Amino acid sequence: MMECSGGVTAPKGFQASGVHCGVKSKNTDKKDVALIVSDAECSAAAVYTLNKVKADPIYVTMEHLADGKAWGFVANSGNANACAPNGRKYAKRMCELAAEGTGRKAEDFAVCSTGVIGQELNISVLEEGIPAAAKALSPSGSDDAAVAIMTTDLYKKDAACTIQIGGKAVTLGAIAKGSGMIHPNMGTMLACVTTDCAISPAMLQKALTAVVKRSFNRVTVDGDTSTNDTLCVLANGLAGNEEIVSEDVAYMLFSSALEAICVKLSKDMAADGEGATKLICCTVRGAEDEDTAEILSKSVVGSSLVKAAMFGEDANWGRVLCAMGYAGVDFDPQSVDVKFASAAGAVHVCCDGMAVAFSEETAKAVLGEKEIQIDITISGGEEEATCWGCDLTYDYVKINGDYRT
Amino acid sequence: MMECSGGVTAPKGFQASGVHCGVKSKNTDKKDVALIVSDAECSAAAVYTLNKVKADPIYVTMEHLADGKAWGFVANSGNANACAPNGRKYAKRMCELAAEGTGRKAEDFAVCSTGVIGQELNISVLEEGIPAAAKALSPSGSDDAAVAIMTTDLYKKDAACTIQIGGKAVTLGAIAKGSGMIHPNMGTMLACVTTDCAISPAMLQKALTAVVKRSFNRVTVDGDTSTNDTLCVLANGLAGNEEIVSEDVAYMLFSSALEAICVKLSKDMAADGEGATKLICCTVRGAEDEDTAEILSKSVVGSSLVKAAMFGEDANWGRVLCAMGYAGVDFDPQSVDVKFASAAGAVHVCCDGMAVAFSEETAKAVLGEKEIQIDITISGGEEEATCWGCDLTYDYVKINGDYRT
Repeated sequence: MMECSGGVTAPKGFQASGVHCGVKSKNTDKKDVALIVSDAECSAAAVYTLNKVKADPIYVTMEHLADGKAWGFVANSGNANACAPNGRKYAKRMCELAAEGTGRKAEDFAVCSTGVIGQELNISVLEEGIPAAAKALSPSGSDDAAVAIMTTDLYKKDAACTIQIGGKAVTLGAIAKGSGMIHPNMGTMLACVTTDCAISPAMLQKALTAVVKRSFNRVTVDGDTSTNDTLCVLANGLAGNEEIVSEDVAYMLFSSALEAICVKLSKDMAADGEGATKLICCTVRGAEDEDTAEILSKSVVGSSLVKAAMFGEDANWGRVLCAMGYAGVDFDPQSVDVKFASAAGAVHVCCDGMAVAFSEETAKAVLGEKEIQIDITISGGEEEATCWGCDLTYDYVKINGDYRT
Repeated sequence: MMECSGGVTAPKGFQASGVHCGVKSKNTDKKDVALIVSDAECSAAAVYTLNKVKADPIYVTMEHLADGKAWGFVANSGNANACAPNGRKYAKRMCELAAEGTGRKAEDFAVCSTGVIGQELNISVLEEGIPAAAKALSPSGSDDAAVAIMTTDLYKKDAACTIQIGGKAVTLGAIAKGSGMIHPNMGTMLACVTTDCAISPAMLQKALTAVVKRSFNRVTVDGDTSTNDTLCVLANGLAGNEEIVSEDVAYMLFSSALEAICVKLSKDMAADGEGATKLICCTVRGAEDEDTAEILSKSVVGSSLVKAAMFGEDANWGRVLCAMGYAGVDFDPQSVDVKFASAAGAVHVCCDGMAVAFSEETAKAVLGEKEIQIDITISGGEEEATCWGCDLTYDYVKINGDYRT
C-alpha cells in the first residue's frame, strides 16, 4: 500500500470542486459548497448517524443510494439543514442543482449538510453556488472540496493511497470534516471516499461497515453524536480490476486500504477536535474480546477528567482507572497496567491496579508532546483495540459557548 | 414538611465535628476529617458507586453495615484511598480510631474517603486527626463536618427538615460533597443523612434506594462516575415515633422528606459542579414512562455542547434535540417542544421538532440568569422527570487540568 496525494481526485475518473456562495455568511469568502463527480457510474455505499434526530439530507441520500449506484456527492457547510423548515425539499433541490450542472439526474447524487441545526437553509445562494461548483469541477479539485466542508475544523482532512489488485493499480481517496459533535456509536461524521476500484455495491457496503467499526466509530471529541454524520463511498471501477463480488483476496486488500484511509482521517478528526491541543490514542490489550477492549478504550478517551488532565499534562492515572471502571464491561481492576508514552519516552504509572512510583519530571516530558499514547494492559485474553480522542481545553468551551454568533 | 437548620445535627441525638489534620496538605489549615456519631444505635442503609473500580472504604462500609446497624460515620477529604497501597487496612484503621475516640466498636462505623486516586493515604496524620475529631464532637458540629468533606466544592452542602409522623416531630439532616467526577447511574457521591426517625433497616434501605433514583442519580457534572460515591443514612429512632416496618403512611411521609433532602443536595451539587456558573434543570414531560423521560433529560444536561452553550448564554436548542436523539430511547422527533426559562422569563425555541422564531434579546436575558430551566415536551404519554446539571466552563478545564498539584 502506498500513500499518495490528490484526495478524492486521486483515483481515476473523479473531479471535484469547492466554492463560496454565502451559506456560511455573506461577509466571508469561505468556501461552503463542495461537489464531487465521477466520469462513470459508481457502486455506492454509505453509513449514517444513529441519532434519532436525523437531518433531512440523510433521508434524501438514503433514498438516492438505495439502488447501490451513484455518480456524485454534493455538500454545503454553514448550515446542517436539520430540524429546519423545508429541509427535505432543499436537500432534494441541492441534488437537482448538482444534476443540472453535470448533465445527470438528481437521484445520482448523495447530499450532505453540516453546520448549525435549526435554521432554514439559504437555498437561494445555493441556486447559484452549486452551478458555480459544477463549472469549477477539476481533476485536481480535491483540496477545494475538502476546505468547503470545514466548519470549526482548523485544517482540511484528506487521504489517498494506491494498492495493486490483480496487477491493476487501484486508488482510494477521501475528504472529511470533523471537529465538534463527534462521538462513537454512529454511522459517522461527514466524509466522502472515492475509488476507481471495481467492486459490487454489496461488497462495498460490507467493507465499509466493517471498516467504520474500526476507524470512525473509535473517535470521540465530545460525546455528542451529530444529527448529520454521513460517510459515503463511491467506486467507479475505472481501475480496470476484475470486479470484486465476494470476500476474496482482492476484497481483503481493498478493505485494508479502506481501513488505512479511514483510520488516517479518524486520527485527523481527533487531533483537530474542537479546541484540541493533543491527540490521545488509547490502546487496551489483553482483553477477552475486541469489543471489551474497544469499550474500555473509548471510555478512557471520552472521559472529561482524563481529557482535562491531558490538557494539563498531569499524569493523573487514577482517572484512567475510574473511566475503565464505569465503562460497563467486566474486567479485573487488579490486573490493570497503565503506561503513558509519547515521542519523549514512556512512564509506567500503574501496575496491577495500584500506584507505582514514577518520576513526575519524566511524566511531564512525556505528556508535553502533541500525540499521547495511553497503553493499558488487562488480563483475560489476547484481544486489543485502539480509540482516538483529544484533550479538553479552554478553547473547546470558548468555541461552543458561542457557536451561533 | 418544614425546612430547618442544623444539618446532620438537626435530628435528636447526633453529634458531629470536622477538624484539620493534614491529609489535604501540611501547608493549609483546611479541615479534612469529619465525624458523625449517634447517641443511640441506628438503623443504617447505604448506596454505593456502580464503578467496577471501587475505593477500599466502600468495601469496609459494606461489611460494617451488613447487619443494617451503625452508630456513626467517619470520613476524610484530600485522598480517595482508591487504587493505593494498604487501602483496606487504612480504611479499617479509620473506623478503629473513630471507635476508640467514642467508646464504640470499629464495626459501628461507616467510612468514606474523597480526593485524589492512587496515592497512599497518610494514615499517620489521621492517627491524631480522628481522636481530635472525637474530642471536638458537638450537637452543633454539622457545619464543621460539612466543610471537612469538601474537595473542590466552593460551598458546603447541607439540608434538614422536620415532619410529623404519628404526632411526633421527626427530623432529617444531611451533609454532602459533590463537585467533580459526578454522573448518574451510580450509588451516588459522598453524603450522610441522619434522622431521629424510628425505621427498620429494611424499610430505610428501601426508601433510600427509591429516593436516590429520583435525586442523586439525576445529577451529572461531567459524566465521570467516581470510584468513591457513597450515600449513607443513619436513623437512631430518638424521635419516638412508632417504628416504621412497612410501606404505610408513615413510610410515605418519611420517604417524601428524604426525597426533599436528597433533591436539595442534588441541586446543590449540580450548581456547585466544578467550574460551574449555572444550574441547569431539564424537565421532560409527555413521556410514555418515567425512565424514558429521565434518560432524555439526563442526555440533555450531560451534553458537553448543551453545557457549553449554557455557559455562553446561547439559545442553541439544536443541541438539545441532538442530545435527545442520541439518548438511546424511542420518541418522535417531530413532537418535540423546547422552552428555555428562568427568573427573567421564558422563550419558546422549538415547536414540533422545528425552529420557531424567537427574540434573541429575550433569550439572552433568560439565559443570563444563574438557574436555567429547559422545558421539553414530547408526545406519547403523561410521565415526566427532571435532571440537574451545570454549564461547562473554562474553570472546569482549569480545575481538572492540574488537580493533583
